[in-house]
Amino acid sequence: MATKALAVIAGVGPGTGASIAKRFGQAYSVVVLARNPDNYSGVVQEITSSGGHAVGISADVSDSNSVNVAFDQIEKQFSGSPVAAAVFNVGGGFIKKPFLELTEDDFSRSLDIQAKGGFNFAKRALPLLLNAKDSSKYPPTLIFTGATASIKGSAQFAPFAAGKFALRALSQSLAREFGPQGVHVSHAIIDGIIDIPRTKGWVLEHEDAKLNPDAIAESYWHLHTQPRTTFAFELDLRPYIEKW
Amino acid sequence: MATKALAVIAGVGPGTGASIAKRFGQAYSVVVLARNPDNYSGVVQEITSSGGHAVGISADVSDSNSVNVAFDQIEKQFSGSPVAAAVFNVGGGFIKKPFLELTEDDFSRSLDIQAKGGFNFAKRALPLLLNAKDSSKYPPTLIFTGATASIKGSAQFAPFAAGKFALRALSQSLAREFGPQGVHVSHAIIDGIIDIPRTKGWVLEHEDAKLNPDAIAESYWHLHTQPRTTFAFELDLRPYIEKW
Amino acid sequence: MATKALAVIAGVGPGTGASIAKRFGQAYSVVVLARNPDNYSGVVQEITSSGGHAVGISADVSDSNSVNVAFDQIEKQFSGSPVAAAVFNVGGGFIKKPFLELTEDDFSRSLDIQAKGGFNFAKRALPLLLNAKDSSKYPPTLIFTGATASIKGSAQFAPFAAGKFALRALSQSLAREFGPQGVHVSHAIIDGIIDIPRTKGWVLEHEDAKLNPDAIAESYWHLHTQPRTTFAFELDLRPYIEKW
Amino acid sequence: MATKALAVIAGVGPGTGASIAKRFGQAYSVVVLARNPDNYSGVVQEITSSGGHAVGISADVSDSNSVNVAFDQIEKQFSGSPVAAAVFNVGGGFIKKPFLELTEDDFSRSLDIQAKGGFNFAKRALPLLLNAKDSSKYPPTLIFTGATASIKGSAQFAPFAAGKFALRALSQSLAREFGPQGVHVSHAIIDGIIDIPRTKGWVLEHEDAKLNPDAIAESYWHLHTQPRTTFAFELDLRPYIEKW
Repeated sequence: MATKALAVIAGVGPGTGASIAKRFGQAYSVVVLARNPDNYSGVVQEITSSGGHAVGISADVSDSNSVNVAFDQIEKQFSGSPVAAAVFNVGGGFIKKPFLELTEDDFSRSLDIQAKGGFNFAKRALPLLLNAKDSSKYPPTLIFTGATASIKGSAQFAPFAAGKFALRALSQSLAREFGPQGVHVSHAIIDGIIDIPRTKGWVLEHEDAKLNPDAIAESYWHLHTQPRTTFAFELDLRPYIEKW
Repeated sequence: MATKALAVIAGVGPGTGASIAKRFGQAYSVVVLARNPDNYSGVVQEITSSGGHAVGISADVSDSNSVNVAFDQIEKQFSGSPVAAAVFNVGGGFIKKPFLELTEDDFSRSLDIQAKGGFNFAKRALPLLLNAKDSSKYPPTLIFTGATASIKGSAQFAPFAAGKFALRALSQSLAREFGPQGVHVSHAIIDGIIDIPRTKGWVLEHEDAKLNPDAIAESYWHLHTQPRTTFAFELDLRPYIEKW
Repeated sequence: MATKALAVIAGVGPGTGASIAKRFGQAYSVVVLARNPDNYSGVVQEITSSGGHAVGISADVSDSNSVNVAFDQIEKQFSGSPVAAAVFNVGGGFIKKPFLELTEDDFSRSLDIQAKGGFNFAKRALPLLLNAKDSSKYPPTLIFTGATASIKGSAQFAPFAAGKFALRALSQSLAREFGPQGVHVSHAIIDGIIDIPRTKGWVLEHEDAKLNPDAIAESYWHLHTQPRTTFAFELDLRPYIEKW
Repeated sequence: MATKALAVIAGVGPGTGASIAKRFGQAYSVVVLARNPDNYSGVVQEITSSGGHAVGISADVSDSNSVNVAFDQIEKQFSGSPVAAAVFNVGGGFIKKPFLELTEDDFSRSLDIQAKGGFNFAKRALPLLLNAKDSSKYPPTLIFTGATASIKGSAQFAPFAAGKFALRALSQSLAREFGPQGVHVSHAIIDGIIDIPRTKGWVLEHEDAKLNPDAIAESYWHLHTQPRTTFAFELDLRPYIEKW
């Protein structure tokens, strides 16, 4: 399978990351990164059992050493496979608290995961994406997952908003630098509650008021398949019923 | 064919509108609106000859009577067909001129076409889209075509920017009012030169620096197929080489 | 008084316009424009009785003839006076209604007043401001009054948002064209309820939750006094208690 | 002088920070923070010699201990003085480099200074500003200095943009949380080159194409004097000749 193209998905738990992995796994070998193997073992098994090829690697995106170890392993194990897509879909850093009750660590954690995590991931993914330019069916693609907090700093959400704003800055900068080099960099604003195991119990006024992770994955796949004449940088996804 | 679903595309010439009509024509009967029959006769023929169903109607979107006549005809001719999609893709109103040389008419024309045109079109399309909610495979969709000038008022572009800003305001307002009613309203920012017959001769520094109208159409189709849990309101499309 | 500099304020009723006229009237002769003389007679009297110089002229900004007549009179009556500032602070076009209940006229009215009104006013004011460059103490200034609806198209607010978005587009375009020529063009987003006679009866949860028109005028005056090295294009003003 | 109100300015060198300190020093005692005493000794002397009261304290905003030591000293030395204003005007973190040449430290430095620095400063300043609510002539004010990079992530500017986006997120969040408590939080986007000793030699096409630091300070003072009915959150300052 050495020459089958590859997708690397960081931030895979039983939610959007798993859906993205499965969607890209229909076309590519998939490497999924998560801190805890429990988070990716289910989706790796699911992809494998439906005839795909998936590998899970433990990695902490906020730690550059950990990211380097993971990508070293990817490069070794999949040497020769063009990396067609890389998705940074890492959660973490979310906290709601009155500002004066925040600890320094509360604030730093979001920056470490979202901003530095995005940096660490992009540093290793971009050389691989650049290399895949001529062998990839679609323009190699780097997608970052944003949130409402990427464009609005709400009261009591300073840490998460700071991290997500910073990640969006990084995305824009990379899109402007690597787009002309043929790599498609996109940023998706996920504006609403996602329908994942963790939110199953949240009862909302409307029955289908939660974002569908498979539909998010389908939009990421659409971004990936756009030709370089017609790149979308940003799209905002929200339930039909969401206030915005 | 009375019960095949319908797409109505306003603003069809030998460019994006034609590509959108052909893309939606793969699934739906298509009605294309343009002021001049010369603009839609080619695409009508092309869709028909490839086994689709297309009808052209002359209409001036800036004139509510003309829009009403066109939609009366649509409702009569396609009575019983759910309207699955409506796309406002009207050009016109574009002018670059030092502000003090603009005539009142230069300024009004863009507002008449883009803002009132969008209003006239939406007024007739939305009741049909609302009616299609239960019979349409995908959520009924209303898409507006924007431009760089939808979010930036550049020097010497006041008329076009005023029209496109106003159209975006309309799009946002409709998305917020009709989204919760199950109609997907979107706005696409087309940021760059589109590769159409009119721009064929424009030589740019890079060979593929123009937006591909078929790729734009593919993104519109993607918007249309999103489930209501996961609507995108806005996406920006530009060539990989575009400065932004 | 022929050589005292002049400020022209369009949209003067017993609210923000009057406060702006009084603030600029401390330094300049003031011409106030309103459709109905009842709207400006009070402030003209107030400025005059405190030693200033004010003249009211009836004008309908949405009608270019009416604007031309007014400015012809200004140029005649104040020939030789540099026009140091012009403020477009026109209300009107505000309406909240379900989209499908809007008439074509409901929609057009906002565009006529806000967008064309802004155009008509700027067309006549800008040549006078350009002429004042060398004789004015501060850079000649053109300020447009925006609203929440200038940057957000809320449900059921399509007409007003379309007009205010268009006015903002015009403001941006003019700032970019005339800034380099030494004229300061600004746009103020008034985000909240203003404390004027019409809103006196509106009881809000907090005692001082309404914008103070004199404070708005003070910010406009600040914009006017900025040197050309340091122009602000946009600022947003809202009560401390406002949700945004 | 124990009861004279106080302004605390972080980020004082021979540029904007000095101008802000001098402007606020006309009304208040001023504490200026900078890493290197060389940076503040000049302005402290200047304010003192013109009859004002200024104290410099060495502090590294990216280090919470250092910030805490500085504020402990302020609280001790100026116990009883209401803190009327606090300004975070810290430079640093600016770097332009192809993304793949950036080190982890290049990226972290901007986040440490701009984002964590803003956090550390706000954590100590806000309790003092809240305490000053009833004794301060104007609403206590916290102003953050932004840049073009606060709203645009340009190619090769990822670190600085990430830091400045994050700082803006923090500003918005604080404005929304502390505005209703009577503290005015603002964010200024400085869009252009500032005319300071370091840029003196930069020859631009137009003679006065650089932002004037005294004019920036004057706008900050204007923000500070706004009543709580009429707070500006954001304003953008740029030379008349700047492209934007």
